[in-house]
Amino acid sequence: MATPTPTRSPELRRDPVTNRWVVFSPARAKRPSDFKSKSSENPNHNSSSCPFCIGNEHQCAPEIFRVPNEPNWKHRVIENLYPALSRNLEYPIGQNGDSSIDLGGWGRVVPGFGLHDVVIETPVHSVQLSDLSPSELGDVLIAYKRRIEQIKGFDSIKYVQVFKNHGASAGASLSHSHSQILSLPVVPPSVSARIGSMKEYFNQTGKCSLCEVQSKDVLINETSQFISLAPFAASFPFEIWIIPRDHSSHFDELDNEKAVDLGGLLKLMLRKMSLQLNNPPFNFMIHTSPLQLTNSELRYSHWFLQIVPQLTGVGGFELGSGCYINPVFPEDAAKLLREVNVP
Amino acid sequence: MATPTPTRSPELRRDPVTNRWVVFSPARAKRPSDFKSKSSENPNHNSSSCPFCIGNEHQCAPEIFRVPNEPNWKHRVIENLYPALSRNLEYPIGQNGDSSIDLGGWGRVVPGFGLHDVVIETPVHSVQLSDLSPSELGDVLIAYKRRIEQIKGFDSIKYVQVFKNHGASAGASLSHSHSQILSLPVVPPSVSARIGSMKEYFNQTGKCSLCEVQSKDVLINETSQFISLAPFAASFPFEIWIIPRDHSSHFDELDNEKAVDLGGLLKLMLRKMSLQLNNPPFNFMIHTSPLQLTNSELRYSHWFLQIVPQLTGVGGFELGSGCYINPVFPEDAAKLLREVNVP
Ligand SMILES: Nc1ncnc2c1ncn2[C@@H]1O[C@H](COP(=O)(O)OP(=O)(O)O[C@H]2O[C@H](CO)[C@@H](O)[C@H](O)[C@H]2O)[C@@H](O)[C@H]1O
Ligand SMILES: Nc1ncnc2c1ncn2[C@@H]1O[C@H](COP(=O)(O)OP(=O)(O)O[C@H]2O[C@H](CO)[C@@H](O)[C@H](O)[C@H]2O)[C@@H](O)[C@H]1O
Repeated sequence: MATPTPTRSPELRRDPVTNRWVVFSPARAKRPSDFKSKSSENPNHNSSSCPFCIGNEHQCAPEIFRVPNEPNWKHRVIENLYPALSRNLEYPIGQNGDSSIDLGGWGRVVPGFGLHDVVIETPVHSVQLSDLSPSELGDVLIAYKRRIEQIKGFDSIKYVQVFKNHGASAGASLSHSHSQILSLPVVPPSVSARIGSMKEYFNQTGKCSLCEVQSKDVLINETSQFISLAPFAASFPFEIWIIPRDHSSHFDELDNEKAVDLGGLLKLMLRKMSLQLNNPPFNFMIHTSPLQLTNSELRYSHWFLQIVPQLTGVGGFELGSGCYINPVFPEDAAKLLREVNVP
Repeated sequence: MATPTPTRSPELRRDPVTNRWVVFSPARAKRPSDFKSKSSENPNHNSSSCPFCIGNEHQCAPEIFRVPNEPNWKHRVIENLYPALSRNLEYPIGQNGDSSIDLGGWGRVVPGFGLHDVVIETPVHSVQLSDLSPSELGDVLIAYKRRIEQIKGFDSIKYVQVFKNHGASAGASLSHSHSQILSLPVVPPSVSARIGSMKEYFNQTGKCSLCEVQSKDVLINETSQFISLAPFAASFPFEIWIIPRDHSSHFDELDNEKAVDLGGLLKLMLRKMSLQLNNPPFNFMIHTSPLQLTNSELRYSHWFLQIVPQLTGVGGFELGSGCYINPVFPEDAAKLLREVNVP
């Protein structure tokens, strides 16, 4: 099948976007083409008891909207029944627009105001996201966008994290295909770090690091509007990024036409991942920019979608240092994924 | 048993040491006292095939040293058979002492030079770290110290990460009690961020944040030389930090007397965790300072040991934002752990 990888030396690589060091350790790996998920299926397969199935809407927390707006819906955005943050907390804005309370030696505290939504991607229990057509998948992406546009009305929300958990070992507690939107009253430090890292690149080169991304050896597929690649310093084996070709800071700039294009590429990546890696559990995350950005920040911040199949665990080294050990070079992962034959 | 926790609102907290925001979400939890590991036992229990058992030394990668230096050893430090980094790579130092190669849009690359050691903590397969006496545990800590002192001889090593994986879901691939020492040619960004965060605190207050740590509600136990507590903005439920009382930047400043004291407190924490949480898989990490520090950095950097039981998984939110959701307030975790009765 795949060409055997020549024996290589380990390398440390630092990505210009995330600014994280990753240890590439071929000695710790089987051959890249031997990576397969051995993870079991999704947690619950019993659709009669599933609150996300059509007909069980009454078992769910309140609906925010559905698409189309009729009993025979295709997608629903609802409140999370067990929200990590609360919609009902007073959010006192302090001096200088900052609501955090400095506790000195204790650190800082912010009341846990925030919105935590669930996006039900399909009415049918057995349908997976990758079973949807490009335009149906585009509709899910447009539902994210529409919800983000509503959330922008809350002054105190600083960042919106869209993410998907698929499979128990990727964190999913329900198997019915869904994703989540968690809106935070703070900008997460890893987002600030990413923007800072992109700024550094911009200051040195006058260009946006993701507009300029070098994709030659690590390219997987491309469409008229997007490219998918294995990032040069991927933290995880077979990690994939989908990047809009045109400069765009915020995911919610996506229009309907681009949504279908992205839907098609996302579908292709999920299908290839499933074929090559034996239907692994996975997460995807939309890395957009903080809601409030200055004009100069807009010039170098560029959103992208990250897909991470769950193939290896982490241990104390990663927890302690924040560095990851990746046994597969992205060039090798890209080559394998480029060549997957999708029926 | 334990007092039920009053219903609380979610909070976001940022720790002055790690500078990370953590979402505290009591709505997503069972009661703190109901947290129990349901994880299965360690991977291999077959001591005849275990390379770390006494008598099987020939199955191991080369030994670095043993304690005591005789056939009847109690601890061994050996090379890792599948090292993440290579001892044999040329490490070309470039101009300005920096060996990394800037690839422009690609990021940075450093040849994967480094040392990856394993510490076998006991000759006997069935003995766990917490079964050792305080002074035997102290000897393991002194073995870490002795190895770090050797590693300091390599100019190109910038940071030494000591860590332990216990149990399969904490990453352990072998069940024989062991830990690892991974020495890196770069300072991990999370270490730089920690030092930066401690510097900020020092600049504001003139004091070291860990010398000043507020332990009242979150204290678990203390000895003459160390305190153990649940950190105010713990990323994980029942996370524990052990902090030296006296200011000390580097773990390898530990002397024999303090090692026994620390050994006793570490043993107590592992025993309490095991009793309260049903022998969970866990990791511990020694957060020391980079090998080369300036005199001013020495004033505000303070090492500590972090213990993380593996009770909850992570999902796309944590991967995407770098923020964690912790369902247990540290005050509640500390109270439970303080009150555990160790037979
Ligand atoms: N009837 C109902 N109506 C409305 N909502 C309902 C509902 N029943 C369940 N829900 C919600 O639906 C969501 C399903 O989400 P997932 O299965 O993707 O992961 P979960 O959030 O449980 O945790 C995973 O993702 C988070 C965030 O990454 C991690 O913290 C965690 O460890 C990991 O397991 C849950 O958040 C749940 O609260
Ligand atoms: N005969 C022998 N002689 C010498 N050494 C031997 C040996 N046989 C095995 N080893 C080494 O012993 C070590 C045992 O380590 P652990 O079980 O703690 O976790 P491991 O490093 O496998 O990976 C875990 O920890 C790392 C780092 O946190 C994570 O990247 C990973 O996902 C997680 O599973 C391994 O590194 C292995 O290479």
